[in-house]
Amino acid sequence: MEHVAPPTGYPVVGMIGGGQLARMTQQAAIALGVGFAVLAANKDDSAARVVPETMLGNPDDPQAALAFAGNCDVITFDHEQVAVDVLQTLTQAGVELQPGPGALQYAQDKIEMRNALTAAGLPCPAWLAWEEGMKVTEAGEQLGWPLVVKTSRGGYDGRGVWVVDDAEQLAEVLKGPLPVGARWLLEQKVEFEAELSAQVARSASGQAVAYPVVRTVQTDGICTEVVCPAPGLSDDIAVMAQDLALQIAGQLGVVGMLAVEMFLTVDGVLVNELAMRPHNSGHWSIDGAVASQFDNHLRGVLDLPLGSPQRLAPWVVMVNVLGGNQPDMYRAYRHVMARDPELRVHMYGKEVRPGRKIGHVTVLGEDLDDLLERAHHAADYLTGVIDE
Amino acid sequence: MEHVAPPTGYPVVGMIGGGQLARMTQQAAIALGVGFAVLAANKDDSAARVVPETMLGNPDDPQAALAFAGNCDVITFDHEQVAVDVLQTLTQAGVELQPGPGALQYAQDKIEMRNALTAAGLPCPAWLAWEEGMKVTEAGEQLGWPLVVKTSRGGYDGRGVWVVDDAEQLAEVLKGPLPVGARWLLEQKVEFEAELSAQVARSASGQAVAYPVVRTVQTDGICTEVVCPAPGLSDDIAVMAQDLALQIAGQLGVVGMLAVEMFLTVDGVLVNELAMRPHNSGHWSIDGAVASQFDNHLRGVLDLPLGSPQRLAPWVVMVNVLGGNQPDMYRAYRHVMARDPELRVHMYGKEVRPGRKIGHVTVLGEDLDDLLERAHHAADYLTGVIDE
Repeated sequence: MEHVAPPTGYPVVGMIGGGQLARMTQQAAIALGVGFAVLAANKDDSAARVVPETMLGNPDDPQAALAFAGNCDVITFDHEQVAVDVLQTLTQAGVELQPGPGALQYAQDKIEMRNALTAAGLPCPAWLAWEEGMKVTEAGEQLGWPLVVKTSRGGYDGRGVWVVDDAEQLAEVLKGPLPVGARWLLEQKVEFEAELSAQVARSASGQAVAYPVVRTVQTDGICTEVVCPAPGLSDDIAVMAQDLALQIAGQLGVVGMLAVEMFLTVDGVLVNELAMRPHNSGHWSIDGAVASQFDNHLRGVLDLPLGSPQRLAPWVVMVNVLGGNQPDMYRAYRHVMARDPELRVHMYGKEVRPGRKIGHVTVLGEDLDDLLERAHHAADYLTGVIDE
Repeated sequence: MEHVAPPTGYPVVGMIGGGQLARMTQQAAIALGVGFAVLAANKDDSAARVVPETMLGNPDDPQAALAFAGNCDVITFDHEQVAVDVLQTLTQAGVELQPGPGALQYAQDKIEMRNALTAAGLPCPAWLAWEEGMKVTEAGEQLGWPLVVKTSRGGYDGRGVWVVDDAEQLAEVLKGPLPVGARWLLEQKVEFEAELSAQVARSASGQAVAYPVVRTVQTDGICTEVVCPAPGLSDDIAVMAQDLALQIAGQLGVVGMLAVEMFLTVDGVLVNELAMRPHNSGHWSIDGAVASQFDNHLRGVLDLPLGSPQRLAPWVVMVNVLGGNQPDMYRAYRHVMARDPELRVHMYGKEVRPGRKIGHVTVLGEDLDDLLERAHHAADYLTGVIDE
């Protein structure tokens, strides 16, 4: 990486991680005119392809991160799985981290998150942190069967999560290996009407804005469809979910984007997971909001005034494109572009692998059913599930 | 430049020139997932800052252009002032150029353009190509005083254009130096009600779409304000202007974006200039249209189906940010962002120089007067013309 300083007065934001979130952050950084650098493992990583200020290195290596930070004014992340010693090394060296380690711990460790939210009186599913000497049958009595088992650290996109039906299955899962520093978190399996995501942006000086609450659909643990705003959600619940997300951002000291994934139940909302970075549930905002989540992540991290999260149409639908069996996406997207001139296509510069997130499509307008049909058709065609 | 091949099936578009048009094309290329490379003179050029596949070299050097083209599937341009021997060398080597030299000549040479449009019966101001032996007084009799003198090649942003009041002034201008290959073009000075720009995108296989016709304001020859759609323009004239632009694109074989700058007069429209690339009058489309001019330039050049040019709000206003006397734009933009959370800021990564285009701002909505006030306030504050 040859460092080219930005024009007079502009800071450089460094993002640790070179995935598609960093890639899409580059689009926002280009508009803002700020410097933007990424620390990526490989030169063909999604963001490394489009960010000249890419330093190649192991994002989990404290010395690589420290060298990277030397050219940056503030460091942020495109994932939560930042190694603890990376955070320690950067903090000790006086590097500005946004979000800071004090906030990030709650996105890194789900037991820390459950402890903090429960202490603050915020609604969570029933849960317990598994400890030596506990009995699997007692866990079942407390949380009910089936229940959900998670590793407190290291899981994402459905990994590190199991649903178990009985004591025997639970005992089996608990025999498995744990990521470094992780413990077992056991949670009530929530009967939900829908999954929601409430995103907020918060700046270092405490300004915060709330995006419309969206409905998300997960397939095999991967977010595949987002509708903004969440269909059928009452204004009361929507405002409650936004307030909850704003409250969490403030109490945990989050800077940048926060996504609060929630379950909508007959009794209200329960917090499922937190992400302190741009999030799949906010990709709709690139085309569908005044200020995208990537724009506002940068603004929050730089302590700039935040942009409006207002949406640009009554409905915005985002559907993820997963890799299928056809390696050449380019031919497929000629087809989907021809079929729908209003389709927004976002491809991540990634080779196709079955089930891998390689892009997303967005449509906006007034007829939700029509938008859902068009977005899913395009995504299915790109994946290769359908061929006409 | 270390070349990283795009994922399987995706082509690489190479753009000759590293200015802000190439910079904003990168944002569109990131979404499409195609490879995008630029040939730029300096590593801190606007686009070079944000495009990893930047080759540093003289864009006017045929050998540099040829080496650059070696890693690209198709070559396009961020300016018209491409040296003739660059075009010849690339053509002879079998490089695909879009738009091709056959079209580009009409954007490069204003006399060629006037000849072609006049032959096709398309409306132009009265004009003549100055030749040895002509009399300045006769030019005035034919075109009226004052009249406009242009160099047929090499002018932009008001350079290479003079308004002369009488024979004496005309004789004085005609003593000046001409760019290589250029001749003098003399034109009637048109009394216009407004300046318009009609942009169309056209693909190699001939699909074409027309953007809404916009009103442009030029200050000292530099585009400073664009309103979409052109206020007060009748539907008849708007459709006529779009048809004219589509006709020109088809007749001249333009591929990618074409901007037709026009004068609106009491008698209809007259063609002023052509640009065969993304154009300042289309920057509103980044935030204000379904598919931006940068997206559609890439799609046209790659012969992909074109995106919808439909606008997202009743009015879209774009105002250019020119460099003033304050070198540090970053402090100023904290202010404008705080004042207007709906403002879209686009800075070009360029050092401030008085009068230099260094960015633009866009707002969209329903109240044109309000949008104009907000956009001009932001631009004036960024330039330093006002400080509150």
